[in-house]
Amino acid sequence: MPAIKHPVKINVDLGEGYGNFKCGPDDELIPLIDHANIACGFHAGDPLIMHQTVLACKKHNIAVGAHPGLPDIQGFGRREIKMSPEELTAAVRYQVGALKAFLDAEDVPLHHVKPHGVLYGMMYRDKEVCRAVYAGVPKGTTVFGLAELYGDVKYNSDNTLVIDRKKKPWHPDETKKHVRSQVENATVTTVTGEELQLPVGDYQVSLCCHSDSPGAVNIVKAAREIVDQFNATHFPQA
Amino acid sequence: MPAIKHPVKINVDLGEGYGNFKCGPDDELIPLIDHANIACGFHAGDPLIMHQTVLACKKHNIAVGAHPGLPDIQGFGRREIKMSPEELTAAVRYQVGALKAFLDAEDVPLHHVKPHGVLYGMMYRDKEVCRAVYAGVPKGTTVFGLAELYGDVKYNSDNTLVIDRKKKPWHPDETKKHVRSQVENATVTTVTGEELQLPVGDYQVSLCCHSDSPGAVNIVKAAREIVDQFNATHFPQA
Amino acid sequence: MPAIKHPVKINVDLGEGYGNFKCGPDDELIPLIDHANIACGFHAGDPLIMHQTVLACKKHNIAVGAHPGLPDIQGFGRREIKMSPEELTAAVRYQVGALKAFLDAEDVPLHHVKPHGVLYGMMYRDKEVCRAVYAGVPKGTTVFGLAELYGDVKYNSDNTLVIDRKKKPWHPDETKKHVRSQVENATVTTVTGEELQLPVGDYQVSLCCHSDSPGAVNIVKAAREIVDQFNATHFPQA
Amino acid sequence: MPAIKHPVKINVDLGEGYGNFKCGPDDELIPLIDHANIACGFHAGDPLIMHQTVLACKKHNIAVGAHPGLPDIQGFGRREIKMSPEELTAAVRYQVGALKAFLDAEDVPLHHVKPHGVLYGMMYRDKEVCRAVYAGVPKGTTVFGLAELYGDVKYNSDNTLVIDRKKKPWHPDETKKHVRSQVENATVTTVTGEELQLPVGDYQVSLCCHSDSPGAVNIVKAAREIVDQFNATHFPQA
Repeated sequence: MPAIKHPVKINVDLGEGYGNFKCGPDDELIPLIDHANIACGFHAGDPLIMHQTVLACKKHNIAVGAHPGLPDIQGFGRREIKMSPEELTAAVRYQVGALKAFLDAEDVPLHHVKPHGVLYGMMYRDKEVCRAVYAGVPKGTTVFGLAELYGDVKYNSDNTLVIDRKKKPWHPDETKKHVRSQVENATVTTVTGEELQLPVGDYQVSLCCHSDSPGAVNIVKAAREIVDQFNATHFPQA
Repeated sequence: MPAIKHPVKINVDLGEGYGNFKCGPDDELIPLIDHANIACGFHAGDPLIMHQTVLACKKHNIAVGAHPGLPDIQGFGRREIKMSPEELTAAVRYQVGALKAFLDAEDVPLHHVKPHGVLYGMMYRDKEVCRAVYAGVPKGTTVFGLAELYGDVKYNSDNTLVIDRKKKPWHPDETKKHVRSQVENATVTTVTGEELQLPVGDYQVSLCCHSDSPGAVNIVKAAREIVDQFNATHFPQA
Repeated sequence: MPAIKHPVKINVDLGEGYGNFKCGPDDELIPLIDHANIACGFHAGDPLIMHQTVLACKKHNIAVGAHPGLPDIQGFGRREIKMSPEELTAAVRYQVGALKAFLDAEDVPLHHVKPHGVLYGMMYRDKEVCRAVYAGVPKGTTVFGLAELYGDVKYNSDNTLVIDRKKKPWHPDETKKHVRSQVENATVTTVTGEELQLPVGDYQVSLCCHSDSPGAVNIVKAAREIVDQFNATHFPQA
Repeated sequence: MPAIKHPVKINVDLGEGYGNFKCGPDDELIPLIDHANIACGFHAGDPLIMHQTVLACKKHNIAVGAHPGLPDIQGFGRREIKMSPEELTAAVRYQVGALKAFLDAEDVPLHHVKPHGVLYGMMYRDKEVCRAVYAGVPKGTTVFGLAELYGDVKYNSDNTLVIDRKKKPWHPDETKKHVRSQVENATVTTVTGEELQLPVGDYQVSLCCHSDSPGAVNIVKAAREIVDQFNATHFPQA
């Protein structure tokens, strides 16, 4: 029996451009993934990009979630901002509602909500922030992020994620090793060399990659290959 | 039989502050009106203000609509911006969806959508803009603005509204005369002195006031008095 | 010999509106003060407001300083944002340069730079932030804020200022007592009742009031009265 | 004697990223050009990018100008916004002052001011806008844009420029032909096939390219080659 008890999925943050500014190679990534986290206009994304990204995901039959962030396009949602719990709840509710309007118009269901960047880090460290974010999520909607694997994010030895302002390049071999260890053993090697056991328990597990990582397409292709092997070996019927 | 064939309602734009910046005396206005148009964060309003304004309207049992505007807090949605039809549709859909999230959380229905400021003026002058805005409104939702009376907006002689960047003060007698003529005769005197017939036809009619007009509370009180008299006289059962 | 060794001046943050949003009663405050700190467009203020505020200060011969803040209109520069030192330096330099353009056009010198709100609080607590802000100030320009009195800000017992998101009202007697204690004895009573000695040393001292405090005009009038008495008593020639 | 009476220079818009969003290949372009127009934070650019771009231009000894635009990051300054003349003057003054702060800190002079995108188009069509923009430029500073050649912009038959929201790709041969005709004959073929004579008169002439054009490096290399040939032939001493 593998450490992960369910078929592994892959999710990627998409729609993270802004106006004329392009972010990731969304068109190439969409066919490779299971779940899309679409930016909602606060850390990236704008209404037109959200509309186009929803259409692209619908065309490829990808499950779509909202990807709300801190209100900071300039900082790409990666600069911590101290907001009150009421503000955080309202900010999440606003963004999820905005995305839902595009989903409703296309008859696509809202599959999940996944907080972006430093907002996720703040939730992890601060229960009040965590409660505030959950309060902004529609009842019954799954929140991603608390039992995830990462294709392109490293771990500190205290089990927290290394959140850089700008993503750094990965060597393809490094990516494969990083992904394989997480998928096959639910372990990860930290930046200081320790081996961490990931608390996947009996949860559904999704592996996250970022569209703004340099070489994102190759990272996701490598992850796809390893995840497909894992799923075929352990969950052949799925 | 009066020129207006239905009881007249009063609608006011609300929630038009931003962060610490206050706009109108919303708390005093809410008990005086029938319909609230709540700003959605593009020309004014922010998530927390939207939440608080929805709660206040719910408490007073006021019907709530979305009040989407051009993306321009600095210009308060009163500077024309040339956007593509696709951008306009997406901008309206985004804003209405964001407000709907706050309404859904409080089990309050979305009553209508009313475009703000120059966006409304652009719709009036340009069919393509008009179509683009309507395309962003959820199916079956009423759009306000095309058969309205105004408590605090003047008319040009070509039947278009005078949209100032900042609202100017009104003398109370002037307000009363302006409102009375519209409600009782469906006419209005233009800034150049002509008398215009308003195309109210057989439509439901709502009279609009702006919370950022100097003396907004007195304007709405005067309008309320005249509207109540008109409704009591012509629609005693309503 | 009084605890404060120089005539006391009064400075107020001005130009803190944004577009149509008004903040304080600038026109009434300007004749009462010695130094204006003009917002530079990041936490409040926009180019037109900056221009108008510079003109008004010039007319009343008030010394003008730049009042740079964190890039957050919605939070009024009162939500902590974690920025890199390079970003902070660049943000301060940008804002001071923008204000200087309006001063240059009117042949008014830049008198000082005074960081706004939480940016000042962050400087006080974190040396790296402090160095980063100073690095953005033009050489030879005075930085206000590190040896100030406050007309409308309270102290915590650890000597830090209580920075609220929205200013709270003060009772006039409370203001007078608060100002008098600082001006005459260089002491202040904290929110928890201790008496703090303010480290005014031999510095030039300026007392700061905020234009967005409810009752700002009365607070500044009270401060003016006490400061004038103090200066007339101790520095009759000044 | 050639139609153009002075050596031709090349200018490119630079620093047009925003936060994590990258725009053009600035590092590759800078060594190829004579004049940089640096975005000032309104249509693109942020304080840190401005600082870094000034440093890069200084290192390569490129003359630096300010590139102010309409306040619209989302629209990249390419959506017309109706602003009052006072607002336009203040917006230009603000942006030029902000850039000047970075130049002053590095002892680099402000070489010119060049309005961006639709702002330039509005100046061309509307004298009031033109006057308002000039009023915001420091006295004695050259304004670029009114006697320019373009490496990657086409002309309409009415002599106005075709300003797209997003730049379209050019075939290298097409670029060369377009540049050669302008540089050697001061003529250009419009999108509808007419040949236009460019009003270069006896002015200093600079040829403009855009860093956000697809293939910008190749466009600028082609322009550099043709401009260098022209200058070597006609102005061998320069």
